[in-house]
Amino acid sequence: MKVYLDNSGTTRAYDEVGDLVRKVLCEDFGNPSSMHYRGVESEQYIKEAKDTLAKILKVQQKEIFFTSGGTESDNWALIGAARANKRAGKHLIASSIEHPAILNTLRFLEEEEGYRVTYLPVDAYGRVKLDALQEALCPETILVSIMYVNNEVGSVQPIQEAASIVKAYNKDILFHVDAVQGFGKYRIYPKKLKVDMLSVSGHKIHGPKGVGFLYIDEHVKIRPIIYGGGQQKNMRSGTDNVPGIAGMALAASMCYDHLEEKVEHMRQMKSHFVEEVLKMPDTVVHGLYDETSAPHIISVGFAGVRSEVLLHALEDKGICVSAGSACASNHPAISGVLKGIGAKKEYLDATIRFSMSEMTTEEEMDYTLQALQELVPMLRRYTRH
Amino acid sequence: MKVYLDNSGTTRAYDEVGDLVRKVLCEDFGNPSSMHYRGVESEQYIKEAKDTLAKILKVQQKEIFFTSGGTESDNWALIGAARANKRAGKHLIASSIEHPAILNTLRFLEEEEGYRVTYLPVDAYGRVKLDALQEALCPETILVSIMYVNNEVGSVQPIQEAASIVKAYNKDILFHVDAVQGFGKYRIYPKKLKVDMLSVSGHKIHGPKGVGFLYIDEHVKIRPIIYGGGQQKNMRSGTDNVPGIAGMALAASMCYDHLEEKVEHMRQMKSHFVEEVLKMPDTVVHGLYDETSAPHIISVGFAGVRSEVLLHALEDKGICVSAGSACASNHPAISGVLKGIGAKKEYLDATIRFSMSEMTTEEEMDYTLQALQELVPMLRRYTRH
Ligand SMILES: Cc1ncc(COP(=O)(O)O)c(C=O)c1O
Ligand SMILES: Cc1ncc(COP(=O)(O)O)c(C=O)c1O
Repeated sequence: MKVYLDNSGTTRAYDEVGDLVRKVLCEDFGNPSSMHYRGVESEQYIKEAKDTLAKILKVQQKEIFFTSGGTESDNWALIGAARANKRAGKHLIASSIEHPAILNTLRFLEEEEGYRVTYLPVDAYGRVKLDALQEALCPETILVSIMYVNNEVGSVQPIQEAASIVKAYNKDILFHVDAVQGFGKYRIYPKKLKVDMLSVSGHKIHGPKGVGFLYIDEHVKIRPIIYGGGQQKNMRSGTDNVPGIAGMALAASMCYDHLEEKVEHMRQMKSHFVEEVLKMPDTVVHGLYDETSAPHIISVGFAGVRSEVLLHALEDKGICVSAGSACASNHPAISGVLKGIGAKKEYLDATIRFSMSEMTTEEEMDYTLQALQELVPMLRRYTRH
Repeated sequence: MKVYLDNSGTTRAYDEVGDLVRKVLCEDFGNPSSMHYRGVESEQYIKEAKDTLAKILKVQQKEIFFTSGGTESDNWALIGAARANKRAGKHLIASSIEHPAILNTLRFLEEEEGYRVTYLPVDAYGRVKLDALQEALCPETILVSIMYVNNEVGSVQPIQEAASIVKAYNKDILFHVDAVQGFGKYRIYPKKLKVDMLSVSGHKIHGPKGVGFLYIDEHVKIRPIIYGGGQQKNMRSGTDNVPGIAGMALAASMCYDHLEEKVEHMRQMKSHFVEEVLKMPDTVVHGLYDETSAPHIISVGFAGVRSEVLLHALEDKGICVSAGSACASNHPAISGVLKGIGAKKEYLDATIRFSMSEMTTEEEMDYTLQALQELVPMLRRYTRH
């Protein structure tokens, strides 16, 4: 049996997305910047994609900007907004458990562009501490960035509360949300949440890799980070990735179709999985696992079993999981997120992330549980010898 | 009849590329950063793509870095190298007929990062003046950027001579080539040419949109411009666009298969087309059109016919062409390239670019000639009334 439980790393594209991408590549292959019918036809794909995505977020079409993925969206939001607003101040705030696409971009801004960054601690469940946010705000603060769903432990951040605190302090401070793990699982309305910028990636929602978007509220001052032919109102140059954009929009609309049912199904699988896995001794589930947590991510520590070893043992049974954050797991290091939530030492290098999608089935979850029940005691015996 | 002569704007992807992209999206959909078999499988696609591209350029695999397209490659080469080498000086040199992906990036470096840029004039055929390059070099020069083939008039730049001049002056000065229009039409060997960095785009060679690469010689000092999970040896973060990368590499290898025959075929079509078109009165072909010019680009001025008008008249006959540079033609402005080569005033807003690909046929070119012979005199009568 092949079981793919690394959907927070990347997802399988819907077949319909694959078909559409192929069609746009080989048939409707125009460049939207061209003035002839092939250009117009491809421009139409872009317009429809914007329309689809804007409706899902309840924002304006002109507030959707396409990028090469979640990482570029994050870089752009931070670097572009920091540059455009530096006269107002050079202080930035982010949670300490952001994705490296945020953390390493902030490091660049700190080390090379003279910005100061405050990193907010999280509670034992991986939720950013709002009192720390309140304290961190200062007259030089220009931007706050907090993710929607943490990619390692699945904690859902108090976005609305955080945005309220920020806007109450100074409504000009920009609030950015990395929603790469939240989009497609939650109905997210930036206007209602008072979110100014929101990053999304195509390949986490059964769409194509190499494409994403950044929602930018029309009032936000932001500079481009990529210069050229002036596409996307001069904000993001480069020939539009029409197949990718069309594919991502189709994936988004498919994701949001019957969303509640799909999420409920994932929640049930998560509950059952957690219940069973916690019956195993010396096992812990990081973060919360009730309905306040992300439906698709389960982070489990198995004391006494190195995560890499368990990962490969599961792989031998056809099960794909991730050890720590999948996005950077080529160079596995002790997870800052697990440390941040105060996970006990014995779990730091003994944690596996199981991440589901709407394509995940109960049978697959049961098969995985069985595999764990068999492998974990065996591997522990090994290690303890 | 449908005739697509805007291949310098974008190309139709090969069917095999469309099939491969679909397969990678929907079947072999892993994230190369994952440690399980799906990760390994997708890592394999990346390795093979690097291998293919490295062989075509006769460079090392580790010198190939994937980007979201030609524009990002150009931005990265300039901004990344400028930042890494600013201690050595802040003077840059480029030809005055570079693509906006170069020109607007240089403007950013000038206006916001304190660099000084010298723009080199071109001769009447659109080739950069080497004596001007020689004069422009100074102790603060850190980088020179000259394109391989100009996208508007198809002039081929004297890359080897330019690189020799630069390296003779100071071998530490980096030489970058925007080869977006040259790759797939010429056999380009950066090591032999003494080129340190080379930009390529997927969608100009019947590959996918939204993907490209930058060749970076192993000795080049360059900083990333996008930060995150540390993919591509920390040089370009973001989940690898596996379908795009695999598709681009396949397209490249198909392009270079029987290259000489395909180019010869384009050359013959170009010669014939130029010969016939020049029989029309008040018509001029910009740049050279012998074998020292690019085989696929023909830029023709039709005095007395506004290019936009002719473009749409051709469109009515199913023929897609471009007025000026396709990459920025949403906001048509008088072409800096035509001005640069000293084109007469009556041709400045009366020029059409016909750009072929290996998929272009003689019948299509003849059909286009007939359409021109019919339309141009008619439109001229209109205008002159
Ligand atoms: C929370 C989060 N932000 C950003 C990213 C980066 O997005 P992308 O993979 O599209 O570069 C990821 C995943 O890789 C993520 O999980
Ligand atoms: C010479 C040249 N450089 C750069 C680009 C930009 O590449 P891309 O379309 O992949 O962004 C183009 C075409 O658009 C081009 O013709």
